[in-house]
Amino acid sequence: MAKAKKQPRPKAQTPKGFRDYFGEEVSQRTEMLQAIAGVYHHYGFDALESSAVETVEALGKFLPDVDRPNAGVFAWQEADEGDKGDWMALRYDLTAPLARVYAQYRNDLPSPYRRYAMGPVWRNEKPGPGRYRQFYQCDADTVGTASMAADAEICMMLSDTLETVGIPRGDYLVRVNNRKVLNGVLEAMGLAEDDPKRDDVLRTIDKFDKVGEAGVRELLTKGRLDASGAFIDGVGLGDTQADPVIAFLTSKADDVAGTMSNLRAAVGDSKVGQDGIAELEQIGELLAASKYGADRVLIDPSIVRGLGYYTGPVFEAELTFEILDEKGRKRQFGSVSGGGRYDGLVKRFTGQEVPAVGVSIGVDRLLAALREKGRLSATPTGPVVVTVMDRDRMADYQAMVSELRNAGIRAEVYLGNPKNFGNQLKYADKRNSPIAVIEGGDEKAQGIIQIKDLILGAKIAENATLEEWKERPSQFTVARGDLVTKVREILDSQDQ
Amino acid sequence: MAKAKKQPRPKAQTPKGFRDYFGEEVSQRTEMLQAIAGVYHHYGFDALESSAVETVEALGKFLPDVDRPNAGVFAWQEADEGDKGDWMALRYDLTAPLARVYAQYRNDLPSPYRRYAMGPVWRNEKPGPGRYRQFYQCDADTVGTASMAADAEICMMLSDTLETVGIPRGDYLVRVNNRKVLNGVLEAMGLAEDDPKRDDVLRTIDKFDKVGEAGVRELLTKGRLDASGAFIDGVGLGDTQADPVIAFLTSKADDVAGTMSNLRAAVGDSKVGQDGIAELEQIGELLAASKYGADRVLIDPSIVRGLGYYTGPVFEAELTFEILDEKGRKRQFGSVSGGGRYDGLVKRFTGQEVPAVGVSIGVDRLLAALREKGRLSATPTGPVVVTVMDRDRMADYQAMVSELRNAGIRAEVYLGNPKNFGNQLKYADKRNSPIAVIEGGDEKAQGIIQIKDLILGAKIAENATLEEWKERPSQFTVARGDLVTKVREILDSQDQ
Repeated sequence: MAKAKKQPRPKAQTPKGFRDYFGEEVSQRTEMLQAIAGVYHHYGFDALESSAVETVEALGKFLPDVDRPNAGVFAWQEADEGDKGDWMALRYDLTAPLARVYAQYRNDLPSPYRRYAMGPVWRNEKPGPGRYRQFYQCDADTVGTASMAADAEICMMLSDTLETVGIPRGDYLVRVNNRKVLNGVLEAMGLAEDDPKRDDVLRTIDKFDKVGEAGVRELLTKGRLDASGAFIDGVGLGDTQADPVIAFLTSKADDVAGTMSNLRAAVGDSKVGQDGIAELEQIGELLAASKYGADRVLIDPSIVRGLGYYTGPVFEAELTFEILDEKGRKRQFGSVSGGGRYDGLVKRFTGQEVPAVGVSIGVDRLLAALREKGRLSATPTGPVVVTVMDRDRMADYQAMVSELRNAGIRAEVYLGNPKNFGNQLKYADKRNSPIAVIEGGDEKAQGIIQIKDLILGAKIAENATLEEWKERPSQFTVARGDLVTKVREILDSQDQ
Repeated sequence: MAKAKKQPRPKAQTPKGFRDYFGEEVSQRTEMLQAIAGVYHHYGFDALESSAVETVEALGKFLPDVDRPNAGVFAWQEADEGDKGDWMALRYDLTAPLARVYAQYRNDLPSPYRRYAMGPVWRNEKPGPGRYRQFYQCDADTVGTASMAADAEICMMLSDTLETVGIPRGDYLVRVNNRKVLNGVLEAMGLAEDDPKRDDVLRTIDKFDKVGEAGVRELLTKGRLDASGAFIDGVGLGDTQADPVIAFLTSKADDVAGTMSNLRAAVGDSKVGQDGIAELEQIGELLAASKYGADRVLIDPSIVRGLGYYTGPVFEAELTFEILDEKGRKRQFGSVSGGGRYDGLVKRFTGQEVPAVGVSIGVDRLLAALREKGRLSATPTGPVVVTVMDRDRMADYQAMVSELRNAGIRAEVYLGNPKNFGNQLKYADKRNSPIAVIEGGDEKAQGIIQIKDLILGAKIAENATLEEWKERPSQFTVARGDLVTKVREILDSQDQ
């Protein structure tokens, strides 16, 4: 038999743009997802887990190149049918699969259908710092109702969710806007729906934070000299034509009624604009009836980000506390969730218009926020480690571990080569173990064991001058029968 | 502008071989995974979530066709680098990614490394009934130790896990065998490691359940007339040569010591066989020290299934209670978990042999078992539904829902078109709602509401003759202020 050609060794490397998650990174995310699922469920939403794989046809949106329709998604052709095999792809979000599922099962699902979904999605994009090709989404959507009660409910749920996962009231704000109001402003300016100037106006609105009212007016009309001295061409609107935009951008008043009245002036006679304002008022009324005040959910026409995708109300949850950025400057943490009302979700499949509204929480950003605020422990406690002094008495050590586990204490026996005891303590250190248990031959003969408080031991080592700690023993000799009692006592003292 | 060519509507269909999971199917699996993770964590195992995507090179094993290396896995070529792009694939299990991760991070990970992982894996195989191309695995492995304490620990953990998720002692058994013992038997028969007859012998051993001792002896030697009258060729061994196999297959004695003594006779002078028996004895000793009796973990040389992959101890968890199969016949539920010791895991990457042992639980089979035993509710209770009698008073209904939710009661307002009240009750029915709340204009004026017990209502409708139920009211008129109290009272009565 000919010997197989020797293959070069494969590289042990996470694929480019992907990540591996270890230990607490995984458990903390799982806990957060469960907490969020709990709130969603409480609001009457049911879980849905669709397959990670969809036909490219069902995903839609990503078909620029018919021969190789994989721009933006990870796609492949079913091999078993040769060239005629379907193109399959990994889902790029949880909304496209919801559309497919709703169209497929619409006769069996309750209508309206409230569903939540959480899981990884995949994007075939150039990875960047902190931007991965696989990441978690956590969505809730209500399909099949045009009622503003669905939109208001999602805002309340978002508020409850943030408080449930550990963001206290005052540290976040859910802002609500409506795409229709902005459309009304554009209409009031006399710009038709297909007028290319609409995009220019939207881009200019986005600069309001930077250049202010006067700057926006210049950019909408004759142009503007920027700080560097360069001249930025204007959109070329007349001065009066720019008025509705300015009115819109400065519409925020002390109370909702005042804001609404300013908006009404901004959109003038525009039907769509008036509809949008009426929708915001309905949402405001529903929020008030359920006692969600402006400290939790705020009607705020100033957010224009991400309006493109949506057709009615738009929501965004922002964390309002300050963090230090990479350069040490204070800045607000920013957005952790967005959503809104969208049409045409199911129409692609059935031809029938089905109204829907949904929200998506950026779980990884929310976790990062909780870590910033010190609400998630960075280095969690590891298991109690029972060390091995005598290789032949593994059964004794295993029995100690079982006793600890049966008492509800996370514990493990050292499974490496026991020859070098230093390695065992190094191992316990790497595991963030709070306690090491030691039983050598002499101890065994005397019926005793040694219990080492590793947390206190580390503190003493770090601050060798602190007399207070030096005097406290970090190693105890107790009877073998007192193993569980003493370990629990030390764990309790460490918790304080 | 030319109008875009009208695309045909995409089909709304789950891709062939995939599944969507709804509501409780998702929540129950999530709960089970969390319960299992809890036990694994308690044993000192840490979570690992590697990326779903790996390079085909790192996955290995699946490279029969170099041009299109996707047999068995879902694979694609990175597009951005043209023909030179790496081939990527979805992971087909959780062990291959563990090998990659361990090789990649081995200097940072504790050694030995105990890790658990749970998540979907994908197989590009022909789907069949109950066989999907995406399914969950739930693994625990210890990498970097040859100590039998690792193997014993995994058996105990498996036993604890089954009891934790709801399989009581007596309804399951973890069986332990050792691949080396079987290798010793083959050696005692004088069959060298590369002797093709080894495979024939293994296949014959698998038929022991069906054909018994005499049948196996015939099949190993001169052949056998089967029940249908067809003659099955024998392996062609001499009668004495078949003795070790028969001794192996009939080695089970009343106690472990007896079984071991029989096995020792079966493997004769074979070094590997003697090693295997010594390993089983060590495991037995460790189990006894931790008080895991033969009612939980049993040393049992009779399992030969799935030995191929493993190099030392092999475990299998079987559910021993009986269920009715599709044809109404009683049969044992069977295996829900398997594992064992394997070598060469990391060697592909580093050239260094790293011993490892692990176990995998079939979560979906375990869920099916719990459903069979009636330990998971089939139709869980839905939310309380507040109906809408007056479209303009949505804020009133929304406020009721908020009151209920704030009191910890799962509740929702009806968001569909409220015109037809019958549709609202049909909706509540589809949602498995326990209670519907009704407030029309008259009730509003009087400060009262109607609360309908839908569970009792359904019972009355089903058993219209049962006087006992007919006399119990299923609809109550209470003051608006008593909403939460009355709803809670009805929910409590339904729980009984």
